[in-house]
Amino acid sequence: MKKVVAAKLHIKKEAEKNFLELAEKLVVQTRKEEGCHSYNLYRDCFSTELKFIFYEEYKDESALSAHNSSEYLKKFFKEVTPLLAVDPIINYF
Amino acid sequence: MKKVVAAKLHIKKEAEKNFLELAEKLVVQTRKEEGCHSYNLYRDCFSTELKFIFYEEYKDESALSAHNSSEYLKKFFKEVTPLLAVDPIINYF
Repeated sequence: MKKVVAAKLHIKKEAEKNFLELAEKLVVQTRKEEGCHSYNLYRDCFSTELKFIFYEEYKDESALSAHNSSEYLKKFFKEVTPLLAVDPIINYF
Repeated sequence: MKKVVAAKLHIKKEAEKNFLELAEKLVVQTRKEEGCHSYNLYRDCFSTELKFIFYEEYKDESALSAHNSSEYLKKFFKEVTPLLAVDPIINYF
């Protein structure tokens, strides 16, 4: 059964460039995963704040856990945490 | 029980300004709905195409159907349809 993740990230203003570089690398890596159906980063069109959402679709539960246990995702979260204005909000469907 | 909608829209290149004007009006109107928890439009950060996602959260099923039956949403879809590059993909959770 398909699994969907929507992860909202609110980034500090001064961290935009650094965040987008880290995020783009993660998008490229994740899209190579066998069970990844789609993996995109979107930016809020009307907020004056740097608000983003990762919208992610996986073939099934095991594809999602393969992603969640990947070294590059762990590295991403380690590097992005100092750039966050607030804690991420991650919803699983 | 909370209801979430993720609606992906792919817009024709020449329709960007017109689409954003229509979408911003819809966002303002929808956020006034009593049962709307959040209603945001996001744009794909890394695509060269105009790809957007509405990410919408409602208090419950009746709040979602109140939104779906609103005149302004019907008007929005009537006006945005000619601006679409492909059919929207709408997921309900």
